[in-house]
Amino acid sequence: MTGTYNSQEQVSRANTLGGYSDHIVVSERFVLRIAHHEEALAAVAPLLCAGITTYSPMRYWKVGPGQKVGIVGLGGLGHMGIKLATALGAHVVLFTTSPNKAEDALRLGAKEVVISENAGELAIHSNSFDFILNTVAVAHDLDPFIAMLKMNGTMVLVGIPSSPNSPPGAFGLISKRRSIAGSMIGGISETQEMLDFCAKHNIVSDVEIIKMPQINDAFERMLRSDVKYRFVIDMSGLS
Amino acid sequence: MTGTYNSQEQVSRANTLGGYSDHIVVSERFVLRIAHHEEALAAVAPLLCAGITTYSPMRYWKVGPGQKVGIVGLGGLGHMGIKLATALGAHVVLFTTSPNKAEDALRLGAKEVVISENAGELAIHSNSFDFILNTVAVAHDLDPFIAMLKMNGTMVLVGIPSSPNSPPGAFGLISKRRSIAGSMIGGISETQEMLDFCAKHNIVSDVEIIKMPQINDAFERMLRSDVKYRFVIDMSGLS
Repeated sequence: MTGTYNSQEQVSRANTLGGYSDHIVVSERFVLRIAHHEEALAAVAPLLCAGITTYSPMRYWKVGPGQKVGIVGLGGLGHMGIKLATALGAHVVLFTTSPNKAEDALRLGAKEVVISENAGELAIHSNSFDFILNTVAVAHDLDPFIAMLKMNGTMVLVGIPSSPNSPPGAFGLISKRRSIAGSMIGGISETQEMLDFCAKHNIVSDVEIIKMPQINDAFERMLRSDVKYRFVIDMSGLS
Repeated sequence: MTGTYNSQEQVSRANTLGGYSDHIVVSERFVLRIAHHEEALAAVAPLLCAGITTYSPMRYWKVGPGQKVGIVGLGGLGHMGIKLATALGAHVVLFTTSPNKAEDALRLGAKEVVISENAGELAIHSNSFDFILNTVAVAHDLDPFIAMLKMNGTMVLVGIPSSPNSPPGAFGLISKRRSIAGSMIGGISETQEMLDFCAKHNIVSDVEIIKMPQINDAFERMLRSDVKYRFVIDMSGLS
């Protein structure tokens, strides 16, 4: 395997530069077709990460019409989760600890927003979800979300906290044959399927385009979650 | 719902007495046929609990020929897990902390026994299991077993510890789309299927039959796991 970024080229052993490259030599098996309009290309770029990371588990666990789907957390992954689950036909509910994210969630396609620290709001949705995509990358208690799943429901983790989540109780899983699973990015053929699906449904990422001199400021803002919802670097100013 | 034991009868409101009853009135939808020989009936009794508890998740997650299946823990549930997974055609491996259980595990049908506190033994089986049935009912670390699952593998918990298991790391799930799930007993139609499957494959529980006066001693022995593998009470001596 040769990683796109910060890996070694097979022949020259030079560092790979990924999207910072002017040109790239690659086996055609690893090239993707983009059917979006050219003006949308900057907003398509994050689909190759946040898009496929959220699309792949929703396809594997067969998210579709008639299902109730929860998205936990509204960031780069969560905002794609809302758009994609909505386009797949599901009734989408955002779980967030930030009441000020509600308006944006509804704009992105969510039908309901639940403040996940409010036990009363959670109780209304108990045992009702087919599928929950948990995008939170800080340690948190999984049990309240497991209790939201109905019989045979699955919660998929796509965020990796630096310290472990608090231990899930066995009873919440056992009593309704619920599952906790994880999923990481996706393969090339599924990424192509995701890009085609997004082009067909006019889905892109919400992005803020920056020039290279803004990169340090953007990094600090990313750490504070102050971005809606992905930074894309315009490389044209670099040379 | 009217529970068989220690519930209230629908009409008289008297306590239900389950298997201690001389006779019982029940809707035919809740009656099961037993095809085993009459001499085997005592050893069939635990199939209604330990049998269906282990059979149901193995059917739901489609355990079958060509699969590598792990059973964690060799007690009442674990010994049925080994017998049933073997009869379903899987290559069965027992995980245990007790080296002195190895001989019995092989007798019951396991092909391999892994001492789960021995990191070197575990490492050999890393990323190789389709399915793991975890029957342990005391809190333990789930991560070493998650690491045994291959891509898309599932570990199902059927034991409920009194304190939570240590928190599973998200990365172990995410890196190979693995799942942790739970399962509880099974429905009537699946219980009938299990009984028919066991009769066809000459499967019963390994039991020790006791008389009612031995019940307190048996209870103490059960707490020490000193039973191979289920006590059955012979009610004939009671009246």
